[in-house]
Amino acid sequence: MKLWQKNTSAKKEVETFTIGRDPEFDILLAPFDVLGSMAHAIMLEKIGLLTSSELEVLLQGLREIYYEIEQGTFKIDEGVEDVHSQVEFLLTQRYGEVGKKLHSGRSRNDQVLVDLKLYYRTAIRDIVEASEELFDLLITLAEKHKNDLMPGYTHTQLAMPSSFGLWFGSFAESLAEDMDLLFAAYKLSNKNPLGSAAGYGSSFPLDRTLTTGLLGFEDLHHNVINAQNSRGKTEKNLSFAMAGIAGTLNKLAADVCIFMNQHFGFISFPDNLTTGSSIMPHKKNPDVFELIRAKTNQIQSIPTQVSFILTNMTTGYHRDLQLLKEAIFPGLEILLDCINMSTFMLKEIQIKKEILKDNFFQHVFSVEVVNDLVLQGMPFRDAYKKVGLDIEAGLFKPDQSKVNHVHEGSIGNLCLQEIKSKMQVAIGQFDFEKSTLQLRKLIEG
Amino acid sequence: MKLWQKNTSAKKEVETFTIGRDPEFDILLAPFDVLGSMAHAIMLEKIGLLTSSELEVLLQGLREIYYEIEQGTFKIDEGVEDVHSQVEFLLTQRYGEVGKKLHSGRSRNDQVLVDLKLYYRTAIRDIVEASEELFDLLITLAEKHKNDLMPGYTHTQLAMPSSFGLWFGSFAESLAEDMDLLFAAYKLSNKNPLGSAAGYGSSFPLDRTLTTGLLGFEDLHHNVINAQNSRGKTEKNLSFAMAGIAGTLNKLAADVCIFMNQHFGFISFPDNLTTGSSIMPHKKNPDVFELIRAKTNQIQSIPTQVSFILTNMTTGYHRDLQLLKEAIFPGLEILLDCINMSTFMLKEIQIKKEILKDNFFQHVFSVEVVNDLVLQGMPFRDAYKKVGLDIEAGLFKPDQSKVNHVHEGSIGNLCLQEIKSKMQVAIGQFDFEKSTLQLRKLIEG
Amino acid sequence: MKLWQKNTSAKKEVETFTIGRDPEFDILLAPFDVLGSMAHAIMLEKIGLLTSSELEVLLQGLREIYYEIEQGTFKIDEGVEDVHSQVEFLLTQRYGEVGKKLHSGRSRNDQVLVDLKLYYRTAIRDIVEASEELFDLLITLAEKHKNDLMPGYTHTQLAMPSSFGLWFGSFAESLAEDMDLLFAAYKLSNKNPLGSAAGYGSSFPLDRTLTTGLLGFEDLHHNVINAQNSRGKTEKNLSFAMAGIAGTLNKLAADVCIFMNQHFGFISFPDNLTTGSSIMPHKKNPDVFELIRAKTNQIQSIPTQVSFILTNMTTGYHRDLQLLKEAIFPGLEILLDCINMSTFMLKEIQIKKEILKDNFFQHVFSVEVVNDLVLQGMPFRDAYKKVGLDIEAGLFKPDQSKVNHVHEGSIGNLCLQEIKSKMQVAIGQFDFEKSTLQLRKLIEG
Amino acid sequence: MKLWQKNTSAKKEVETFTIGRDPEFDILLAPFDVLGSMAHAIMLEKIGLLTSSELEVLLQGLREIYYEIEQGTFKIDEGVEDVHSQVEFLLTQRYGEVGKKLHSGRSRNDQVLVDLKLYYRTAIRDIVEASEELFDLLITLAEKHKNDLMPGYTHTQLAMPSSFGLWFGSFAESLAEDMDLLFAAYKLSNKNPLGSAAGYGSSFPLDRTLTTGLLGFEDLHHNVINAQNSRGKTEKNLSFAMAGIAGTLNKLAADVCIFMNQHFGFISFPDNLTTGSSIMPHKKNPDVFELIRAKTNQIQSIPTQVSFILTNMTTGYHRDLQLLKEAIFPGLEILLDCINMSTFMLKEIQIKKEILKDNFFQHVFSVEVVNDLVLQGMPFRDAYKKVGLDIEAGLFKPDQSKVNHVHEGSIGNLCLQEIKSKMQVAIGQFDFEKSTLQLRKLIEG
Repeated sequence: MKLWQKNTSAKKEVETFTIGRDPEFDILLAPFDVLGSMAHAIMLEKIGLLTSSELEVLLQGLREIYYEIEQGTFKIDEGVEDVHSQVEFLLTQRYGEVGKKLHSGRSRNDQVLVDLKLYYRTAIRDIVEASEELFDLLITLAEKHKNDLMPGYTHTQLAMPSSFGLWFGSFAESLAEDMDLLFAAYKLSNKNPLGSAAGYGSSFPLDRTLTTGLLGFEDLHHNVINAQNSRGKTEKNLSFAMAGIAGTLNKLAADVCIFMNQHFGFISFPDNLTTGSSIMPHKKNPDVFELIRAKTNQIQSIPTQVSFILTNMTTGYHRDLQLLKEAIFPGLEILLDCINMSTFMLKEIQIKKEILKDNFFQHVFSVEVVNDLVLQGMPFRDAYKKVGLDIEAGLFKPDQSKVNHVHEGSIGNLCLQEIKSKMQVAIGQFDFEKSTLQLRKLIEG
Repeated sequence: MKLWQKNTSAKKEVETFTIGRDPEFDILLAPFDVLGSMAHAIMLEKIGLLTSSELEVLLQGLREIYYEIEQGTFKIDEGVEDVHSQVEFLLTQRYGEVGKKLHSGRSRNDQVLVDLKLYYRTAIRDIVEASEELFDLLITLAEKHKNDLMPGYTHTQLAMPSSFGLWFGSFAESLAEDMDLLFAAYKLSNKNPLGSAAGYGSSFPLDRTLTTGLLGFEDLHHNVINAQNSRGKTEKNLSFAMAGIAGTLNKLAADVCIFMNQHFGFISFPDNLTTGSSIMPHKKNPDVFELIRAKTNQIQSIPTQVSFILTNMTTGYHRDLQLLKEAIFPGLEILLDCINMSTFMLKEIQIKKEILKDNFFQHVFSVEVVNDLVLQGMPFRDAYKKVGLDIEAGLFKPDQSKVNHVHEGSIGNLCLQEIKSKMQVAIGQFDFEKSTLQLRKLIEG
Repeated sequence: MKLWQKNTSAKKEVETFTIGRDPEFDILLAPFDVLGSMAHAIMLEKIGLLTSSELEVLLQGLREIYYEIEQGTFKIDEGVEDVHSQVEFLLTQRYGEVGKKLHSGRSRNDQVLVDLKLYYRTAIRDIVEASEELFDLLITLAEKHKNDLMPGYTHTQLAMPSSFGLWFGSFAESLAEDMDLLFAAYKLSNKNPLGSAAGYGSSFPLDRTLTTGLLGFEDLHHNVINAQNSRGKTEKNLSFAMAGIAGTLNKLAADVCIFMNQHFGFISFPDNLTTGSSIMPHKKNPDVFELIRAKTNQIQSIPTQVSFILTNMTTGYHRDLQLLKEAIFPGLEILLDCINMSTFMLKEIQIKKEILKDNFFQHVFSVEVVNDLVLQGMPFRDAYKKVGLDIEAGLFKPDQSKVNHVHEGSIGNLCLQEIKSKMQVAIGQFDFEKSTLQLRKLIEG
Repeated sequence: MKLWQKNTSAKKEVETFTIGRDPEFDILLAPFDVLGSMAHAIMLEKIGLLTSSELEVLLQGLREIYYEIEQGTFKIDEGVEDVHSQVEFLLTQRYGEVGKKLHSGRSRNDQVLVDLKLYYRTAIRDIVEASEELFDLLITLAEKHKNDLMPGYTHTQLAMPSSFGLWFGSFAESLAEDMDLLFAAYKLSNKNPLGSAAGYGSSFPLDRTLTTGLLGFEDLHHNVINAQNSRGKTEKNLSFAMAGIAGTLNKLAADVCIFMNQHFGFISFPDNLTTGSSIMPHKKNPDVFELIRAKTNQIQSIPTQVSFILTNMTTGYHRDLQLLKEAIFPGLEILLDCINMSTFMLKEIQIKKEILKDNFFQHVFSVEVVNDLVLQGMPFRDAYKKVGLDIEAGLFKPDQSKVNHVHEGSIGNLCLQEIKSKMQVAIGQFDFEKSTLQLRKLIEG
């Protein structure tokens, strides 16, 4: 049963094909659909399209449904097309004609759009919070292992001394910087599309500023065509931000997988977090990080999926847009899983100590020794030559126990405090509190 | 001749293959290489690795080269590997040993990184300025055509009344919103990587805050591994921002191509901006917009190109990163061309007037009439039924000359002022003035 | 419970994360796992690692499970890791120790690989059969509508006369040509990887030619590393072939959506196959074709998803490969749906007749008239000039009811017979019969 | 000057933007444009649109131009739009009016299409030949190093014995299998589009079978719309085939880069093929393979570039298609470079001997020992237990000098002959000789 059509009897094949995986995803939109409807109802009353008693009835009915969703008792009845129809159907079933009045001045297009924006806003909050937890752990690990040296590679070749502190810290700062792209996506999600109707506005005197405030949006898409065209663009920008964080985790996972290789052997995890074999006792398969690597690749392909659907398409709603959910919704969950599993695993990471003391790593120190000589006053050219000759003659015996790096962001000066500030500033841009408060007001009346 | 190697004689085939298209792109980096070197030299003097007279010589030599670049007389000599080597070669040739001291505490890796960041910062400025010009034109066109109605489509089917004002305005607001993603990319480009050396810092007591200020960066990548890993990530984020704007222009181009189709016939351009045929007088091929459509697709594929090179790769410099230039550098130019050609063409756009008065578009007004009846007091259900019956009976005769939309962002209330403010705020985030001023100081001493 | 590990107690979080969506996909592999195991068992007996009575027991046990899968009574028990473990678990539970002997000379890696290859072979057969059905319908429609003219467009501008026969026929030939890419994918799927073990072969004297024959493979991956590396490559090539067919359907869908637009109005579908609105009677939303367009875009993004997971990765199995299923398995189903829905819809397509007789389409005939004059002996230059002048003077009155095209593949000579032959030859390359027969033999003993 | 327009004076900006990089690419099409024109001319004479003396003049003129192209003296004159116009311009300039008659029954669309197909056919031949050379080297290396053991990895963890023979052989077989995808692309390139005119055929009685034969095409695109739509599809399929080979080379490069890492140290190259540092004597940067890895990623992104331009587009020529050259033409050159540089480098590869004899690799042999015991009659379970206990007790002392693998495709039985046959069969599918012969006939008369 579709509420917005008089008398169709679409062939079953068409129904099945067009509904697709929507029921599975739409249930996630249910609470936001109720919230959007509450704001819309309040606005309709203000402009005289609902009486205040009709509004009361609708708000009560919508609150009931909201709590049913929270309790997990809400479901889409057999034969009802989608979550939006189900909400309207319940209202009408329970409170009669007034349920149908809710749809005045609204189209399915802007209704879904507002649901999606509210959902993305919440999903972004989840990602930020999970990122913050991972970030804090990385900072803790960096601090803890700031004196544990390891080699640094360029061209996958041994190059210079590095440290676990530096390595952990690099991912912390990277995550902090990833927040900017996420914030750009958040800003686009945090704009009210309600009132754009089917994408060309309405002849009803809608008060869009009112619904913007009620739903805790920071701003609205003013132009109604632009509001409609933000369907797809919002997902595209979100997919970019997701791919940004995924890139950071992908590199972390790639490093872990190689550092666990027995030739490196720099890090390890408890047996119950890896897979192995009793006849190959040194084998510890990093399955979790291999899957993080692969899952972050899934996420990095979402921009392509989304862009294929959008590109070369003219202005206005196309049914094609429905399929964006199939790319984004699971992607959001996968990303959250990857962040959380990274935290879960890194809590148990075991670090090999004193790696660089092995003679094998001697040449990693050659630039250090050259620089030391320069700092002691020897011209660079002479210092370089001396070290080269010492190495050739087998006389090169650097101190492999420590390095003396002091500048900002170096092994000896990790700037963890500055990096923490960077994260705080980045996260501070999001106004989750404000919007959450606003939605709570709506629910609690 | 490579400055950083003692005695190689790489096979010619290897040279050719590894240098690739670098000379073509590196010339764009030349002025930024000089600027980065000036900041580095000033810092070296401050920490005692250069005497003040050595610094004087180097700054003078670098300024000379900068002006040669500006004059177009700078070029990479036969046998010199790249732009960075050429700068050092000229310094050494002209001023002797001091030229070689410039490379202390710096690696080719952070040198190239800082050049790229400075270049991207400038390229982003160009894009913002071109976008602003297009934006202003779109606002002007929206205002000019605010009363020119046209049909709006959903599912590519005639749906509701729209207007050229609304249509132009939608792209203006979309462009304004695209600036947020570009700003996120800008923030990542506006962080100083200098001092990260080969990606693991240096045992020299570099003053990275000093070079950050001298080069007008807003901040630095503190962690040196993260600084190195920003190579690639900076390009990736920039490619996302480019793909964002490209998406807006792609939709504009798609609309133009369909609106120029003779069945629509809504818009036109002067003959010298289209191609045609004297025996098919109604044929006006929208070649420019077809190419904008295709070029914005090229741009939208850059994130994939960049991500392929980066994904599954471990921490640290890999030679692979060199090829990012081949994706980004031409992409920046193509994007700028697309924005500018959109402006160039839209200046001459011709609009068909009174489109909707044709009887063909009658049903586009049916929702309007229903809503009017509702506003006059008739229950929605009855109004809907009446209009349905009128249509069936051939009695439906709406006023096809105007619509009465008044809410924010609708046909009758385009909110152009609000959209202009949105653009101003978006552009105001960028601090181009500050960084430009800083670079000018460096050059002018 | 994992069969291949002695005493793990992996944390629940790790289990959940690493298993992922495997159970959902693996059930599709169940019958092929049984078949692969049967072939492996027969081979083990031949080389003396099983006695003939052990083989009898195993074959009987495997046949039982095969029939349970066919009946739908097979399922993965709580706590059993995957479909492969479940099969071995059932064998051991029912027939004791002999069940464990099945895994000699085999690794989970080549076991899964052979399952996947057999599954893809079947999936490709389904796609070929569905394509053939759509092809036949397109040929029928082309024949039926060979005299129904319509305009042809270049640059989305009216250009030349075309016909529905030509239009339908173009998709038929395109589908026929798509079979070549699918055949390339099939060839890679039709190579036996069994015996490659974990990717480096086995010290058991496996008879790989025997299992190749038993499973109806055309050939084997000889080199065992190459066999292992075909995991991923097989999926990549398959995704290319899927994207090929998707491209053909995407264009068909794009055409349908525009031809259903009211300005064109060339085609239509019965009301119960479209969505509409009773107050916008001319609105017929082509939802099914919009979704085919979007779903074929999902499919066209699969190569990117697959390639991201594979690229920059070293030789040998990585757990990452598990996630290829999440791209390919649903993709195969979506593609099959798209082909079948195209057939379903096109069966009911309604064609507007006599389109070109409308004066609106007059200029579409100008090249025809020029050519006619040339064929009558007038020099091209003069003919062209005359037509140009006639048009300018309003004297151009072409016969708009028919065109006289006679060459191969033109409106008047659709070459449907040749195109059918092309399809038959293309499909004839696949040897489905042989492999099916072989598998049936295995099951039926 | 455009030959196909009467009196345009397109603005300079439009010209510059629309021509783009075409001149750079079109010069590659010049010889094929001449060949296509020769075939077209012969056909025109046969159907009476040219006299036999006109044909003589045209063929002579075209042959002249062909030789000028071969000599490198052909160039596009100032003000001439493209290579196709230049050819016609030269003919007309030299031989008068007859030059203009060449374009009867042909459109710029099918003219370019036929040029592209002929060019791709040749480019594919180059790729096949380069692949064959690399293949032969890999087979030679596999044979040479068949007894040189190395470890095999799963999950990037030490797993089983492998060998250099096996490793080289895997890439040989992979390349052989890549030829199938390339052959599918070749088949699509080897179909004649000439006669499809602007995409809707012609009212002239063209003999398309004649030109198909003259140009050595295996077949024609019968349906003229399908012929036109093969623009883009041909490039897409070719990009898939290129991405296939690129995937094989990418894995080879990834392996080389890790095997050159000092922890592995399995392979090396002479100093003049790598870059290094005199104070880090063990550092050998594998720049060439890093760039092969990155360049094969560029190639793997081409399918996305191509598909973005094509997707969601309706039937018929769009100017967008011009930009496919910018993806494909450089891509073909890059791929050829990557294949050739792989050959160039591998000719000099140096292999570390006796790797596995080091005690470090002991556990790699544990499965071997278990299997040996089984083959000697001990039940698997007992053998497994014994090896596990031996390892635990430090009593595990396998023979680390050789393995006894005998089955097809294993270390001891590389099946190089079978793999060579596979390559021969794969390459034998292409009929380069036939088409080359045909073109030579055309030129030589």
